[in-house]
Amino acid sequence: MSRDDGSDHGSPRGPPWPNRNTLWGHVIADEFAKAGVSAVCIAPGSRSTPLTVAFADHPGIEVFSHLDERSAAFFALGRAKRTGDPTPVLSTSGTATANFHPAVVEANQARVPLVVLTADRPPELRESGANQTVDQTELYGGAVRWYHELPEPEADGRKLRSVRVAVARAFATSRGTPPGPVHLNVPFEKPLEPVSVPGDVPEGFERDEPLAATGRDRPFVGVETGRPALDDGSLERVADALAAERGLVVAGPSTTLDAGAVADLAAATGFPVLADPLSGLRFGARLTDRDIPICGGYDSYLDAPNWPAPEVVVRLGASPTSKVLRGFLREAVRGSGTRQFVVDPAGEWREATFTADHLLVTDPNRLARDLVPLVEATGSERWRERFATAEREYWTLADAAHDEQFFEGTVLRDVLADAPDPATVFVSNSMTVRDADRFAEPRAADLTVLGNRGASGIDGIVSSALGAGSATDDPLVCVLGDLAYYHDMNGLLALSRCGVDATVVVVNNDGGGIFRMLPIADFEPPFTDQFRTPHGLDFAPTADLYGFEFVRTDDRAGFRDVYRASLASSGTQVVEARFDPEDSHRFRETVHDRVRDIFEE
Amino acid sequence: MSRDDGSDHGSPRGPPWPNRNTLWGHVIADEFAKAGVSAVCIAPGSRSTPLTVAFADHPGIEVFSHLDERSAAFFALGRAKRTGDPTPVLSTSGTATANFHPAVVEANQARVPLVVLTADRPPELRESGANQTVDQTELYGGAVRWYHELPEPEADGRKLRSVRVAVARAFATSRGTPPGPVHLNVPFEKPLEPVSVPGDVPEGFERDEPLAATGRDRPFVGVETGRPALDDGSLERVADALAAERGLVVAGPSTTLDAGAVADLAAATGFPVLADPLSGLRFGARLTDRDIPICGGYDSYLDAPNWPAPEVVVRLGASPTSKVLRGFLREAVRGSGTRQFVVDPAGEWREATFTADHLLVTDPNRLARDLVPLVEATGSERWRERFATAEREYWTLADAAHDEQFFEGTVLRDVLADAPDPATVFVSNSMTVRDADRFAEPRAADLTVLGNRGASGIDGIVSSALGAGSATDDPLVCVLGDLAYYHDMNGLLALSRCGVDATVVVVNNDGGGIFRMLPIADFEPPFTDQFRTPHGLDFAPTADLYGFEFVRTDDRAGFRDVYRASLASSGTQVVEARFDPEDSHRFRETVHDRVRDIFEE
Repeated sequence: MSRDDGSDHGSPRGPPWPNRNTLWGHVIADEFAKAGVSAVCIAPGSRSTPLTVAFADHPGIEVFSHLDERSAAFFALGRAKRTGDPTPVLSTSGTATANFHPAVVEANQARVPLVVLTADRPPELRESGANQTVDQTELYGGAVRWYHELPEPEADGRKLRSVRVAVARAFATSRGTPPGPVHLNVPFEKPLEPVSVPGDVPEGFERDEPLAATGRDRPFVGVETGRPALDDGSLERVADALAAERGLVVAGPSTTLDAGAVADLAAATGFPVLADPLSGLRFGARLTDRDIPICGGYDSYLDAPNWPAPEVVVRLGASPTSKVLRGFLREAVRGSGTRQFVVDPAGEWREATFTADHLLVTDPNRLARDLVPLVEATGSERWRERFATAEREYWTLADAAHDEQFFEGTVLRDVLADAPDPATVFVSNSMTVRDADRFAEPRAADLTVLGNRGASGIDGIVSSALGAGSATDDPLVCVLGDLAYYHDMNGLLALSRCGVDATVVVVNNDGGGIFRMLPIADFEPPFTDQFRTPHGLDFAPTADLYGFEFVRTDDRAGFRDVYRASLASSGTQVVEARFDPEDSHRFRETVHDRVRDIFEE
Repeated sequence: MSRDDGSDHGSPRGPPWPNRNTLWGHVIADEFAKAGVSAVCIAPGSRSTPLTVAFADHPGIEVFSHLDERSAAFFALGRAKRTGDPTPVLSTSGTATANFHPAVVEANQARVPLVVLTADRPPELRESGANQTVDQTELYGGAVRWYHELPEPEADGRKLRSVRVAVARAFATSRGTPPGPVHLNVPFEKPLEPVSVPGDVPEGFERDEPLAATGRDRPFVGVETGRPALDDGSLERVADALAAERGLVVAGPSTTLDAGAVADLAAATGFPVLADPLSGLRFGARLTDRDIPICGGYDSYLDAPNWPAPEVVVRLGASPTSKVLRGFLREAVRGSGTRQFVVDPAGEWREATFTADHLLVTDPNRLARDLVPLVEATGSERWRERFATAEREYWTLADAAHDEQFFEGTVLRDVLADAPDPATVFVSNSMTVRDADRFAEPRAADLTVLGNRGASGIDGIVSSALGAGSATDDPLVCVLGDLAYYHDMNGLLALSRCGVDATVVVVNNDGGGIFRMLPIADFEPPFTDQFRTPHGLDFAPTADLYGFEFVRTDDRAGFRDVYRASLASSGTQVVEARFDPEDSHRFRETVHDRVRDIFEE
């Protein structure tokens, strides 16, 4: 917002600076704003006062205030997922900082830009028994792209310029290849408040050290970040390898895939796209105008015994959610020597069956664009038709199944089928994302479907969703299970404090329904007490606690009515659909059996 | 419980072992039980299945099931604070493990035994994009006493013996000098359930490898842990230094100080004891029978200008909560050259003013006992009388103040004055513990008063309190502010799931009342929005969510009635007392001014 106008220099705590900490905080906030940051998440605390004051003062920065640091960090993560840019998150010293750790781990693995700012005591107070002083050095270990401790505040030109550079670098690194979390530890000594400390900032400091105190009228350091690109020889070799009749483009979870570029590559090769619900390719108006099957039903039909193996596969994004798909690709390589390209700009190997045979360390969007003119449409009509037919038959069968019984999968079907265009939909882990994968049909609608698939935890889902919603005028839907809802109920406070409206859909099967799918279900005890863990919680009171409408539904028509009504109205509604996990599990299996029966013919 | 009887060997998943993981889990649970562990905290998950099954099967081990790992770890911490022994806490792989981090940090700094067990994927799945796989190696950095990764499960004698030794060592290290957290990372490959894998555990394995499979009828490794003790020469020198008229024993927060031994030392020297509310010395029947002032009012009167400096101070436990006391000791050294002994068995320096001049690396209880025969009662009657008088006058004045106005300090006074004998009282950080320090009069009652003063966070308080309560038949009181209540509302689920009854007292001043005490209160904005952070939450609905009685009171008589009634009844009651933080702050200052007026005369 204030990137270029420098309007913040007239802020209430402007020069002359009452003390070094006020100046220091100002320089950090100023440089973040100039880098393009327009919002921060702050959990209250004393040690962080100079930064809190500076961010709150800054006219170009919106402050989202959170009381639980765990939720604050997930909110920042969700916001960054939606925007692509980091929303710095700030805490005071002590255990507050450790509460950021789950979101830092998720941001690392999901490759989400996150800038963590932890205020700290001055170094001499470490290991001295001083209050709320813990060792924050490299607190998040290898989970951050960069750890840096700022020097102790001082009205010194070089030090202040180093802070401006560090902020620029933190911002850029969080958006690097791959994006991820960075951690700046910021020690402060008292006084923390903008009280006058005569002599602390020399008179005329702004005049003598303008670069340090005022910075530039643009980011102090302009950063242009290159992304890895293959040379012509490599591209030719990949293009040659794609000359096959039976090829597939597999799009795993990603918030950065350019759907148009990937679809262009699919069209140019004539290969179907298997699109994870979190890939950005399953939903989108721009995809359906190409004559390429965009497939979403693979989790139901690719384990049918008579599928021919593809000759070549291009894997983009993270490892797909679908276990069936991952197994299909593994067996294809083992059985038929399918060539499989894993495309990863960071050079990591995100393919846990270890059967793929080629790693392309390159930006996937650039790769797709560069390949389009080099490839030929060798993909066979028959191969495409096979997928197109499978999709038609599967979705028809699935629709009939939903008409027959309202089960957990129906909720995910309806949530995504009935979501307005555009909308942002945040999908929880565990059974929720699996049901989305299996039951949400590809749609020509601009749905931004997000999930935390880095480490696939059920923590922080509410906050991540509301963070995403805070960054957009799209209607926001969050769909999650009861354990995820419980785990981050604190995150619901952001509805009022951060001014986010949402439609929250809780698939409540009273515990860990996913465990029904695992062999442990046959062992009782300890199955119910230690795995399914029914909690018996009635979530209706959370409506009174956090101020929203809570509606419980138990049939499909009711659910769809309430869901659509919520999307059409303002404020937040939590829509709960209750299921017996045993019933849903059984029906899910029944549907799967029916699909296999069809495809075995 | 099952330490010596080996009764677990007849457990339902006993030999022949269906697979190596079942055997592996059994060995770990067996060895923990033999070491003396009688309970574990488990958060549900799949990867941890072999351990969950083994603990749930073990007849000597009680399982506390938690759905939020953050709360689970704080519950284990609180339980360990009350018992002195670790309650292992187990999670599955992924972000679940990072949710333990806040409690690990607190356990490190508060020196509480904590054994963290994190299930993990097999090593080859790290950095492969496999689901819920994060790098758990040294996840908690320097905050644990010991990190160890167990080998991959195998029915191998040496490997299994190494596991038994590792468990013994983990248990012993967590209770070492100083006590603290240890982290065992435990990788498992599928199948995780006790399903039969022919050949996985060779037939007759129990017979061929009895030590590995069955262990011994006692802990596999008996551990005797020495504590540092001074030699006679050192003791003589310390005893000589204590030959003074004006000496003080300062007892900071600790769960391990032997109140009798410390009081004996005070009596032998004739020195008053300044007893932090969390020191274990402010409350206790055995203290008052000695003719030594046990002082609790110092936070109110030691900043009066006319206090003579002590000649010698013995500091036990962690750094005292009272800023007034810490300032008094600092000025005494600076002004009068007071000798100040910091006693720390771990050799750490827990004295953040850096003015004390002597570190005694020794067990404080042993030191006290060893010094008693060596010291003389040089403490002067006049010096003791000065403190005794100050206490009398201060508590009389404070009582009058509480009669005059019901403010936040009154709640802490009444909570501790009216607590039954015996009782366990968990006190939150921020203003709560400060008000306990200032307004809770020493009592000849067996109160176990606990708090998380390691890193002094407001996180995890509810869970820590309920964990402490789970370990005792004492009535349990938890007193905390509204932010701490909000932060760990999830912890309230343990009331029903873990079968703990409590009286929870919420001092609700709608936000961060403590910030009123800081200079930032003069800066508006951002004071209200970013620091005091009023949330306007009405906590009454939490009663419906978690199934307890919620009672709101707004006067002292009402509060005391409800509080006493709760203590006399079963089930859990949450008693909320609401205050305007401005009023309470102002009255607290008024009382402090009155104290200064008296002592200035």
